[in-house]
Amino acid sequence: MDKKKVSGFSKLNKTDKIKWVAHNFLYSNPIDVVKDFAGYWHDNIEEQKIFDGFSENTISNFHMPFGVAPNFLIDGKDYAIPMVTEESSVVAAAANAAKFWYDKGGFTTTINNSVKIGQVHFTYPGSKEKLQKFFPELKYKLIDGVENITANMEKRGGGILDIELLDFTAKEKDLYQLKCSFETVDSMGANFINSCLEEFGNILVDGIQLNTAFSLEEKDVKVIMCILSNLTPDCTVTAKVSCPVKELGFFQNGLMSPQQFADKFTQAVRIAEVDPYRATTHNKGIMNGIDAVIIATGNDFRAVEACAHAYAAKDGEYKSLSHAEVVDGIFTFSITVPLALGTVGGLTGLHPLAKKSMEIMGEPTAHQLMSIVACVGLAQNFGAVRALTTSGIQAGHMKMHLNNILSQFHATEMEIEKAVAYFKDKVISVSLVRAFVTEMRAV
Amino acid sequence: MDKKKVSGFSKLNKTDKIKWVAHNFLYSNPIDVVKDFAGYWHDNIEEQKIFDGFSENTISNFHMPFGVAPNFLIDGKDYAIPMVTEESSVVAAAANAAKFWYDKGGFTTTINNSVKIGQVHFTYPGSKEKLQKFFPELKYKLIDGVENITANMEKRGGGILDIELLDFTAKEKDLYQLKCSFETVDSMGANFINSCLEEFGNILVDGIQLNTAFSLEEKDVKVIMCILSNLTPDCTVTAKVSCPVKELGFFQNGLMSPQQFADKFTQAVRIAEVDPYRATTHNKGIMNGIDAVIIATGNDFRAVEACAHAYAAKDGEYKSLSHAEVVDGIFTFSITVPLALGTVGGLTGLHPLAKKSMEIMGEPTAHQLMSIVACVGLAQNFGAVRALTTSGIQAGHMKMHLNNILSQFHATEMEIEKAVAYFKDKVISVSLVRAFVTEMRAV
Repeated sequence: MDKKKVSGFSKLNKTDKIKWVAHNFLYSNPIDVVKDFAGYWHDNIEEQKIFDGFSENTISNFHMPFGVAPNFLIDGKDYAIPMVTEESSVVAAAANAAKFWYDKGGFTTTINNSVKIGQVHFTYPGSKEKLQKFFPELKYKLIDGVENITANMEKRGGGILDIELLDFTAKEKDLYQLKCSFETVDSMGANFINSCLEEFGNILVDGIQLNTAFSLEEKDVKVIMCILSNLTPDCTVTAKVSCPVKELGFFQNGLMSPQQFADKFTQAVRIAEVDPYRATTHNKGIMNGIDAVIIATGNDFRAVEACAHAYAAKDGEYKSLSHAEVVDGIFTFSITVPLALGTVGGLTGLHPLAKKSMEIMGEPTAHQLMSIVACVGLAQNFGAVRALTTSGIQAGHMKMHLNNILSQFHATEMEIEKAVAYFKDKVISVSLVRAFVTEMRAV
Repeated sequence: MDKKKVSGFSKLNKTDKIKWVAHNFLYSNPIDVVKDFAGYWHDNIEEQKIFDGFSENTISNFHMPFGVAPNFLIDGKDYAIPMVTEESSVVAAAANAAKFWYDKGGFTTTINNSVKIGQVHFTYPGSKEKLQKFFPELKYKLIDGVENITANMEKRGGGILDIELLDFTAKEKDLYQLKCSFETVDSMGANFINSCLEEFGNILVDGIQLNTAFSLEEKDVKVIMCILSNLTPDCTVTAKVSCPVKELGFFQNGLMSPQQFADKFTQAVRIAEVDPYRATTHNKGIMNGIDAVIIATGNDFRAVEACAHAYAAKDGEYKSLSHAEVVDGIFTFSITVPLALGTVGGLTGLHPLAKKSMEIMGEPTAHQLMSIVACVGLAQNFGAVRALTTSGIQAGHMKMHLNNILSQFHATEMEIEKAVAYFKDKVISVSLVRAFVTEMRAV
């Protein structure tokens, strides 16, 4: 058996890492493989070092297209939105939807709240009443004990909002939780929150162990883990677009009236409110837009994804994050989505293009970024549902897909023209396009 | 009011797009801004064209670190896993967990099934019984009517598995659904499924309208939309690691016994099974690993995210995707996760580094890639829960964060040493590190 266990891989320099991978897994000339991966390094060594430092065992940079969606009018202000996505149609759909709504007043948003959550999970094998009685005193000790951590955050207007004691003993023997709420202003706050929580864990154990009210058995309190929660249902923003139905205009080359469109569109959104199979895809489309801005600004898209989808499931059935309705002849399409974002700290200030993204959007605060991101999600959703309820999505998708494949074969303009004509009414795949291009060139 | 609405932006060439953004949103010298963005273009114009073609309005490439996690032993085979992530600690944690399990037999996986789902949502204002009676005939027509689309897929071993008629009239007036299942072999299948579905929509309407059994009113059948579902609960893989408790070894410099570790670890996972606030973060950690491989292979991480989280909510409460237990002295940690992936088609064959990723992993089939991705998710989760239940995560995180910030200030080795010593017991932020570095250099 050909074992490839390695020790000290992380200590190898970049070139030696690539050579090890080449030797063990690619069976090609290591020099060529190094050249392949080095082709994506930044020319400036100092700048490349920054990218290499973000993560571990880095050997190259994965290029994701950085695009711009102009014509976003949000709360009366113009924006061009930086979007990083590898999926075709996403930026185009966002830009189209933004333009559609521009003259109808654009997007308006409301920040509903911005509470972040952290948890200290612990077991305590004693009297629940005793613990509850001790809690007010403990709470004071907890807040007091992390003053050195919170001082800076308080200067910026944030800090600890509250600490609750939750009883989980019905679900797991002796399990309790300190559920802590924080305001972290313009930072996402993960490091701040986790630092507070780990200290809370220590203070909790000391507090009980040094308190004579607790018996020896009760003093066997154990911290299981201290960690922020990515579920922030009280850190939400609402974005909406709205106009009289008749101003929606005609669709499908005039075949679909504004009222027909409004009816079909609102029905399509209602389907995503009653069918989890549809809701998953509906919300996936929203996240196509949201994640593209999240990545462009150096925020953490896994955190945003987990929160948005868990929030979509909060009422017991997974459903749409957006809502559409017609009331008194007014069409309104809105979304309420939890977004725990940062505009200072983290990668935002470190990745050169994330910094550029922030600059393009006028250095938004965390609240403003929440608004922008929610609007892009809503725009994306509008574009997708409009396409689905009018022309269908395949026509556009297939065109983009064909272009991508043809560019891979370095097709000339004339070849592209012929291919587009040929595949107009056919299913497109790499192998079919390859066959077509090969045949065309063989003639 | 300074209006910035633009028409024809997408038609501008790349340089003019950047100049427009610079002029309207950056108020800096457009030539400098072009230079900034061009710094991230690939030196090879033909290759850059490929990146530009993936998406729209592209002006640059967003560099994401491409790393490698070695020492994954999966179903008896060695892997080095390509991972694309901007988050520190993710690749290191995956690699550490992989190494930990290597000598204990590594990871084993089972593909449970691989059914993809598509939906035709439609309204039909007539007798439900009549529709149900017509359905067997319609089903034949549907399958027959897309033979030109399915022929190629059938040659590869895939095709249509089933079509069901679902009644949604209790939730929305006149609403029905064709719920269609597909096998798409090594492709993710989105284009194939959507092409079939749009044709199903046409056949459905024709079928009812041409059938004399339906009244004029009943013939007013309307297709709302035809689209695949990203929720694929019957396209899952199970990955697991397992060993006798005593082989887990000691933790915390010998202070924590194997049994203590196993007890605390399994309890931490149970907490994520009963508390959605913890579950969200727990699953977010799993997705840190999963998404890194998804991006590296050119798959669509929004689709995978939406599916995983909606699946986590399938039982009415959002909960952990992984499960840990000790039975008869054997510790087992496992995950069952839905993954609708492709290894042919889409971006996988178009993005040069996605192709390289596939090559490094030995050109896996879609099923093999499902296994690999699930193992990385499980490894990531093991690493996170192990850190949380032993040393806590802040020590490691803060060290990485400090290194990132110092590299931004181009700190020398001696400066790094001093900063590490100074910040050992302090909270780390860009502004505090900047102040420290400035002061250190001023001396």
